Amino acid sequence: MKELSKKIKAALKEEKCDLVLKNATFINVFTQKMETGDIGIYKDTIIGVGNYEGINEIDCSNNYVVPGFIDAHVHIESSMVIPEKYSQIALKNGVTTVIADPHEIANVQGIKGIEFMMSNSKSTLLDIFYMLPSCVPATSFEDNGYTLSHKELGGLIDNPKVLGLGEVMDVPAVLNRNEDMLNKILMSLEKNIDGHCPKINREALNAYLTSGIKTDHECTTVEDALDKIKSGMYVIIREGSAAKNLTTLIKAVSNDNYHRFLFCTDDRHLEDLIEEGSINNSIRMAIKEGVDPVKAFTIGSFNTAQCYGLKNLGAIAPGYKADLVVLENLKRVDIVKVIKNGKDVDSVKTHKSSSFKVKNSMNMDFVSEETFKISSTGAKVNVIKCKPQSLETKLVIRDVTLENNIISEVKGKEILKIGVFERHKRTGKYSLGFVEGLGLKNCAIAQSIAHDSHNVVVIGEKDKDMAIAVNSLITMGGGIAIVSEEKLIAHLSLPIGGLMTFQDPFIVSEGIKRLNRIARTFGVKPEFDPFITLSFLALPVIPELKITSRGLFSFTKGEFVDLKLE
Amino acid sequence: MKELSKKIKAALKEEKCDLVLKNATFINVFTQKMETGDIGIYKDTIIGVGNYEGINEIDCSNNYVVPGFIDAHVHIESSMVIPEKYSQIALKNGVTTVIADPHEIANVQGIKGIEFMMSNSKSTLLDIFYMLPSCVPATSFEDNGYTLSHKELGGLIDNPKVLGLGEVMDVPAVLNRNEDMLNKILMSLEKNIDGHCPKINREALNAYLTSGIKTDHECTTVEDALDKIKSGMYVIIREGSAAKNLTTLIKAVSNDNYHRFLFCTDDRHLEDLIEEGSINNSIRMAIKEGVDPVKAFTIGSFNTAQCYGLKNLGAIAPGYKADLVVLENLKRVDIVKVIKNGKDVDSVKTHKSSSFKVKNSMNMDFVSEETFKISSTGAKVNVIKCKPQSLETKLVIRDVTLENNIISEVKGKEILKIGVFERHKRTGKYSLGFVEGLGLKNCAIAQSIAHDSHNVVVIGEKDKDMAIAVNSLITMGGGIAIVSEEKLIAHLSLPIGGLMTFQDPFIVSEGIKRLNRIARTFGVKPEFDPFITLSFLALPVIPELKITSRGLFSFTKGEFVDLKLE
Repeated sequence: MKELSKKIKAALKEEKCDLVLKNATFINVFTQKMETGDIGIYKDTIIGVGNYEGINEIDCSNNYVVPGFIDAHVHIESSMVIPEKYSQIALKNGVTTVIADPHEIANVQGIKGIEFMMSNSKSTLLDIFYMLPSCVPATSFEDNGYTLSHKELGGLIDNPKVLGLGEVMDVPAVLNRNEDMLNKILMSLEKNIDGHCPKINREALNAYLTSGIKTDHECTTVEDALDKIKSGMYVIIREGSAAKNLTTLIKAVSNDNYHRFLFCTDDRHLEDLIEEGSINNSIRMAIKEGVDPVKAFTIGSFNTAQCYGLKNLGAIAPGYKADLVVLENLKRVDIVKVIKNGKDVDSVKTHKSSSFKVKNSMNMDFVSEETFKISSTGAKVNVIKCKPQSLETKLVIRDVTLENNIISEVKGKEILKIGVFERHKRTGKYSLGFVEGLGLKNCAIAQSIAHDSHNVVVIGEKDKDMAIAVNSLITMGGGIAIVSEEKLIAHLSLPIGGLMTFQDPFIVSEGIKRLNRIARTFGVKPEFDPFITLSFLALPVIPELKITSRGLFSFTKGEFVDLKLE
Repeated sequence: MKELSKKIKAALKEEKCDLVLKNATFINVFTQKMETGDIGIYKDTIIGVGNYEGINEIDCSNNYVVPGFIDAHVHIESSMVIPEKYSQIALKNGVTTVIADPHEIANVQGIKGIEFMMSNSKSTLLDIFYMLPSCVPATSFEDNGYTLSHKELGGLIDNPKVLGLGEVMDVPAVLNRNEDMLNKILMSLEKNIDGHCPKINREALNAYLTSGIKTDHECTTVEDALDKIKSGMYVIIREGSAAKNLTTLIKAVSNDNYHRFLFCTDDRHLEDLIEEGSINNSIRMAIKEGVDPVKAFTIGSFNTAQCYGLKNLGAIAPGYKADLVVLENLKRVDIVKVIKNGKDVDSVKTHKSSSFKVKNSMNMDFVSEETFKISSTGAKVNVIKCKPQSLETKLVIRDVTLENNIISEVKGKEILKIGVFERHKRTGKYSLGFVEGLGLKNCAIAQSIAHDSHNVVVIGEKDKDMAIAVNSLITMGGGIAIVSEEKLIAHLSLPIGGLMTFQDPFIVSEGIKRLNRIARTFGVKPEFDPFITLSFLALPVIPELKITSRGLFSFTKGEFVDLKLE
């Protein structure tokens, strides 16, 4: 009451504002035009535009001011840093609010994983909202850490930081009226429900939307995007690290429909966040592709606020939150200053990192060189062939050489052994196979990031190196390990769920770059990022041949297939 | 769950729809274009557009289909019929949802009045949402029936049919940080807050909006509307009976800002609702004024749904409510059929009228001829001069003739006596004055509708007729009474709060027309509707001279003034 009182007084000029951005040229999302004036701020609220004086004033005569950017859909875990560190990177990029879907950590540590993320987000300057992961596990035939039914999610749906149900990737579960999925949907109807429906025909889309799902970030063509807009969906244009759809989809945006588009990063790696940016990068690219700047900024802020019912975000007007980005140049999105909750981000002391207990998520036994032997009587094997710049693979068949009924060699170029080890419930399940095309020589790489179940995936030339790599992962609590000639050459510890570290983002980014350089010295071809590639080799829902802890999976056949052929 | 399941099946064509509008040309609010297709409906939900079959099918090949209209702001009491009757009139006009502000009945019967309206709305086919009246009483210097502080309203704010706080007319209460007003606002922040700020400078508007108020329906000029749009308000374009702003304000609508405009009727009388329409009339007028039809229909449905967070209303797309209007002609808005909750309104049996107890709201004692005598020693009086087509009046000064120190005559043309009697708390308060220009002769008219406090207002030539008119009102429990030569010539009973009747709208409309005809036979000039005029003579917040139960009030001076002058 007192605070509202003072805000009213400040608007009436009966009190000085806390902060005024003087003579700012700014974007008005309501009129879709630029305007100039003093932006008056009291505490965390814009009290109005006009002629104002403040205790602090920033002369913006040569600057542009735009609403803080909002990332409509992000997996913070993909940055490898925890929320309180992610906050710093996001804010540097002018992103003042994100809507996070913690399904990566949920697959490893269930509800406790989600609660960790939410708890670690409590005191971040960045506003982090959450969508409850709807598809954990992602499929019924993988070995992830936990199953989250509507009962487990029910305990969190009323949390004020939860905006609804996360990307419903399991489209068949909706179309086939799976009871648990429908219960998750019904429980979330008063809030929001995100979708994920890459290829879907008209009736299926109607059914999917009838259930109440309202967004999609998996469009790949303009036609796809326009069909979904027509059907009432919000289309979220994604520009991540592996998945980059902006340049294609931005052509779907018009003066009539722009208010139905949002921006997101989805999975975006630390290096890209640091060097190119986040939603600021999306806006910059959109403008470069010819979108009117005012619309580009509106898509990157106001539209997302409107979609998710974040009533006081995304605009520069009285009553809205003072989340603002001050730019040197509108089109280049050169950030001079970021204002969050009415304060210059640079002037806010980063609070001491919170302390928290990290529960070991590497629940698997040590392996040995023996583990990696593959016995066979047949002459051929199915091999996973990697494709550059793609999450997809091809199935190829190669001849093998046997010694004492053990496969001693696979005939062909650049063929490595691959293994996936269940690491959540100490089941001992694992499966072995072969992967071709990466170029790695005399080296083994193991990591605990493997979408979506995040078991251990290891590739290598020698069984002994592979065993040491896996065991190093176990000892470090998860992460990435590079081994050659039986020595651990380099590693990155990701002890939080085997996915994240508590380290500073810049240190982590340098660490990842170093791992990449080392991997290349061991022959990884330039067209592959070995860690991204590895992280998708165990994802069975993307074509064509993948490997999980239960064996080789053929997307086309929709079932497991044998490694060995006659 | 079961119902959602079936809706999904219907969308997938695994089951027939309940109803299909075949081959309809309809408005797509997302693309802002027209489209053609079958609109499939299951139960109360649109399950999609495409190629569908239904148990019932309506061939719409020669028709247009648009989303059901939404009235953003209406005082149902001004129609004189109760919600369950209002529902019929609204639906005939294609209005499928209204947002009602029951401040008229609240001024008479407090929270119980609001609860009556909400209870009577429960089983209406029309969806009626409510805003809690924020300014009861409207001013501190009138005698209304109840005071509703934030404590009283607090009991209703969480009701799912309540969308927030109603028009904050008391702008000074906000600007001066009145504690009760701020509490009402704070309590409503998670929902919506309507505004009412006809003339307001920039800083005051900033302060008003900083508090969280988001709509205004009192704009009178394009400049005013555009200033408010700029500041982030939704501008509600009103076309009522007394207040008609559409033709002026529609010029403010552009391709860039149309999504921030809504339509409302505010106070619209039964005859106008029956003969011209409601929001259908607004849309028709807007199109006539040159607005693109698709935008006009969007303003009249989708924009209002978006503003008030009515997530599944206002669009023709899967998951949205099957509230639709079938038109013969788009621009003429010729309604062929109205579909509400997936059913043809004409096929839905009007349920038996609910029975309810009506508490007498005429809490005042009978008056006598003596009551109307005005003693004086002075030579002049202040007289209220009526202006045609306006809610405003002028102050004029006229000479008087005295007989035994009683005013026997006021010198001038068309001058009648007027009285306002407190009728809520039996205080006995009343005041007398004179009104000029209406033309009524040899007649007295009394009514219990008098904005905003709804005391009894009576005008007449003879004291005896005036007394009989007032006493007739008391006996009938409120309404309108016309008396001449000591006989009750005609009346309309409005026993619910002295504002509404339970009668059928068409009967009531004919009754009002009859009263109007009779009033004209007694000399009321054609440029005045006597009952509308009477209902505003006691409203002190509109210029220039008015009369309340406490005396004559000068808007310009902001205070009570004497009737009698030296």
